[in-house]
Amino acid sequence: MRTKSFRSVVRNYRAVFFDAFGVLKNHSGLIPGIEQTFTYLEKKGIPYYVLTNDSSRSPDELAKWYQDRGMPNITTDKILSSGMLAMEFFKTKLANGKVVAYLGTKKSAHYLEIAGQNTIAISDVDLNDLEHIKSFAFLDDEGFDWNKDIDKTINLLRHKNMTVIVANTDKNYPVNKNNISVAVGGLADLVEQILGKKFIRFGKPDAQMFLLAYERAMVDVPDIQRKEILMVGDTLFTDIIGGNKFGLDTALVLSGNTLPDNAKIKISSSGIIPTYVCESAVIQL
Amino acid sequence: MRTKSFRSVVRNYRAVFFDAFGVLKNHSGLIPGIEQTFTYLEKKGIPYYVLTNDSSRSPDELAKWYQDRGMPNITTDKILSSGMLAMEFFKTKLANGKVVAYLGTKKSAHYLEIAGQNTIAISDVDLNDLEHIKSFAFLDDEGFDWNKDIDKTINLLRHKNMTVIVANTDKNYPVNKNNISVAVGGLADLVEQILGKKFIRFGKPDAQMFLLAYERAMVDVPDIQRKEILMVGDTLFTDIIGGNKFGLDTALVLSGNTLPDNAKIKISSSGIIPTYVCESAVIQL
Amino acid sequence: MRTKSFRSVVRNYRAVFFDAFGVLKNHSGLIPGIEQTFTYLEKKGIPYYVLTNDSSRSPDELAKWYQDRGMPNITTDKILSSGMLAMEFFKTKLANGKVVAYLGTKKSAHYLEIAGQNTIAISDVDLNDLEHIKSFAFLDDEGFDWNKDIDKTINLLRHKNMTVIVANTDKNYPVNKNNISVAVGGLADLVEQILGKKFIRFGKPDAQMFLLAYERAMVDVPDIQRKEILMVGDTLFTDIIGGNKFGLDTALVLSGNTLPDNAKIKISSSGIIPTYVCESAVIQL
Amino acid sequence: MRTKSFRSVVRNYRAVFFDAFGVLKNHSGLIPGIEQTFTYLEKKGIPYYVLTNDSSRSPDELAKWYQDRGMPNITTDKILSSGMLAMEFFKTKLANGKVVAYLGTKKSAHYLEIAGQNTIAISDVDLNDLEHIKSFAFLDDEGFDWNKDIDKTINLLRHKNMTVIVANTDKNYPVNKNNISVAVGGLADLVEQILGKKFIRFGKPDAQMFLLAYERAMVDVPDIQRKEILMVGDTLFTDIIGGNKFGLDTALVLSGNTLPDNAKIKISSSGIIPTYVCESAVIQL
Repeated sequence: MRTKSFRSVVRNYRAVFFDAFGVLKNHSGLIPGIEQTFTYLEKKGIPYYVLTNDSSRSPDELAKWYQDRGMPNITTDKILSSGMLAMEFFKTKLANGKVVAYLGTKKSAHYLEIAGQNTIAISDVDLNDLEHIKSFAFLDDEGFDWNKDIDKTINLLRHKNMTVIVANTDKNYPVNKNNISVAVGGLADLVEQILGKKFIRFGKPDAQMFLLAYERAMVDVPDIQRKEILMVGDTLFTDIIGGNKFGLDTALVLSGNTLPDNAKIKISSSGIIPTYVCESAVIQL
Repeated sequence: MRTKSFRSVVRNYRAVFFDAFGVLKNHSGLIPGIEQTFTYLEKKGIPYYVLTNDSSRSPDELAKWYQDRGMPNITTDKILSSGMLAMEFFKTKLANGKVVAYLGTKKSAHYLEIAGQNTIAISDVDLNDLEHIKSFAFLDDEGFDWNKDIDKTINLLRHKNMTVIVANTDKNYPVNKNNISVAVGGLADLVEQILGKKFIRFGKPDAQMFLLAYERAMVDVPDIQRKEILMVGDTLFTDIIGGNKFGLDTALVLSGNTLPDNAKIKISSSGIIPTYVCESAVIQL
Repeated sequence: MRTKSFRSVVRNYRAVFFDAFGVLKNHSGLIPGIEQTFTYLEKKGIPYYVLTNDSSRSPDELAKWYQDRGMPNITTDKILSSGMLAMEFFKTKLANGKVVAYLGTKKSAHYLEIAGQNTIAISDVDLNDLEHIKSFAFLDDEGFDWNKDIDKTINLLRHKNMTVIVANTDKNYPVNKNNISVAVGGLADLVEQILGKKFIRFGKPDAQMFLLAYERAMVDVPDIQRKEILMVGDTLFTDIIGGNKFGLDTALVLSGNTLPDNAKIKISSSGIIPTYVCESAVIQL
Repeated sequence: MRTKSFRSVVRNYRAVFFDAFGVLKNHSGLIPGIEQTFTYLEKKGIPYYVLTNDSSRSPDELAKWYQDRGMPNITTDKILSSGMLAMEFFKTKLANGKVVAYLGTKKSAHYLEIAGQNTIAISDVDLNDLEHIKSFAFLDDEGFDWNKDIDKTINLLRHKNMTVIVANTDKNYPVNKNNISVAVGGLADLVEQILGKKFIRFGKPDAQMFLLAYERAMVDVPDIQRKEILMVGDTLFTDIIGGNKFGLDTALVLSGNTLPDNAKIKISSSGIIPTYVCESAVIQL
């Protein structure tokens, strides 16, 4: 696979969208050298944004993670998460003060609370008293007991028909160099298949995620066109196909999900073709 | 199923999005009385737009169909089609003057030509000379020979890896009161499954379709919010789930795909819940 | 839905295959009156067999359940379980004394041990020492910690390529009148989807389950033909389609999964057509 | 990929099952040298059978193809086709003289006529007069007009609920060195998906196909055990997984669908593991 240097690619764009996991960070922390990329972009005056299928943490917390690692310029307003789309959904579609049940940590429920809803963890739901529960959200794969709460979710949704949202489209995520874990999007698939229902899902590759970031970019560069933005990601099925479809140029980096060994075969077997392939998003100054 | 009168629902909104087939028209022509709905909306000053998963005809032709039937106010700028998203895609992502092969009628290829591309019908493609072909589009289920051209499409995409778009997500459509026909989205499913590839699809329920219409609505009502728009459709899996996800209120009408007899069971088995259910979009003045 | 009396149907056959759950028993115990059916069949000299997608218990234990409830004639040799197919598979395909890892209870692993294999529960597997593990079996949805052992199964199968079998094709099962639980077949779906691998599955509607019972019936009625056997079940997608495909006549009973209210719509929407529909398998003497 | 010589593998078995396409023949005719394999097997007294997902031709015609190419010992009784399972199905499940509509050539309908049914090609069906039509069969991808008859099949099955069988599970097949064609199993998928119905499918990897051949082998070698039979095929998803599941040993040959370059990656990504891998089934004497 012939790759291009990230520097030679990125300097032709007026804004950059980064996927987080596999591009900026991995299981051990920041990808070594990535801070130089941000130094470069800031010097060149190219604004950047982080688009993440993560509904387990608030944008504040997600930003703080970078700041704690010596990157003070990655502020909350640079972060666009699938959790924000879920929040926006509830803000628009549900009257204030309704009760939304959820699967996830207490922290992940914060997105719903900011949207003005009352929340109840699935473990606290009484299946005999569902009158007040208006909606359901899949938020995080942690914070509940898989032995009981997956079945309880299924039975809640069998007993009462309600709108269900999934705040993260990912099926799994890496936990360390060798292992992965089922993500809340994978659990939602299981529940959807057993119930035969259709949930509303938020996150890449869906257009709404890119729209959210595009609206943010237009604040910084008012006349920016879609094709003047570069989407940088490590996953063909979320970052690259989503970016292509939204009209962005796309750079696949080989520092995460897609490995140098199989990038070529993955591109040709999936038919998902990035504009560029780069070894990583690191720019050495 | 308890229904609401469409008049009592629609008057609370600042703009309306209509699905076409099953809402405004059916196999016999206009739905009787629907012109009164437009008279009502115009009198009230509520702007309206038609969102259609149709890439077989240009917006001009789609508008002319209504004008020929006594509705002069449904002008080209009121029509948003999935073909327009395909056009926009090629305009942004492909340099001018490239060659796009397609499955469909010559008329449907118009969308590509407006985008500045050269086009070639699959029947005219020489499988031994693919150098110049850069992309492929599924546009219409007519205009080619199913006996040969579906296989030829499959072999073209096996021989050369290229970006493929599908300009209509529908699997089938009604041809008369009793019968349906496979739509180009259904053919694309067949090809995708045989190849194991992933195509880019345009049309409801995808957010981009709603975004296109929302941008149009903001021209007419600059400060309009999503929840001030009503999406009216006859199909839960495209119009209603897509409208809900985009943050619109939704009205399911029972004049098309979803029948009065099974609306309740379809809503409860799918978990896709419209804001309102109305018998039809007809307002009797 | 017009139904036939089970007595008028069954007396024309030379052998009967019964599904267990929803036909002979439910969450509360035996279906009231079902013992009279067996008295009738014995009097008429019509042999019967129980075909169950159950790999959590041995045939001995499954038979004992009926015997404990006053049906001494339901002996081990009357029971055909999907676990027996799994056992047969390992007996044939794996040399004696190999190690098979499993998800399930210690009791469910009995099927593997009878097949001459050594077994190790997924919780006891060391992911850094997989040399000796030769195969994997999904056996039961209990007996392990869902919080850890589903992910561990996924990572085991990522680290080492091995043959995987699923000893129960069911996705879920009823736990009481109102609630269901994810079955091991549902968990296997989740794992299969995340890995992109293809497991070997045993149980109805697969032909091997019916073949096992047919071979048993030929011991009792040596010249029996397939069409002289009646398959009785409550589920269209396992009992009825499987029986039809194997060449048996089929009776759908409305005492379990398929309710009197929706039998007609389920038959017409699925296209799976039983030879007969009966209210239940109970014969009142 | 380390391979074994086919001779060293096959001599340890008491019977052999061969897939046809990609193993014994390809688009140009017999695989060069394959006749020596049959000479070897006959000398050793190892009986062999051909298992093919082909319902377009009768076993007589399939056998004649080999005989015309200098292999007089491949007689009709050596051939087991998925069409024979379809025939058996109709013989058992449908009273004589009923009418079965079909998609395919007149020749392919022969299987139904031998089963004692009257047949009608879909092109001759009158959608306003369906009273007499009792069942439907997908038989071949040729012999009809794809432009009209696929839609007509869909509408027939919408208007009248009937049992539908698919006599070939393959999705596509090679037509020459570079190109493939949609098989009738692929068309059945399309129709099934549009209708939301569930058809009965015959052919590998299903157990019934292997059972048919096993019963034939038991005539020649009465005490033969499953593990004494070798299944030889070029396709992991039909020949190998089906053979493994039925308890046979399996040899993947690299002369067809699975190429030497990607055999290793296909085995590890699918988790379908053959007992042996051989370059081809040719034995050089």
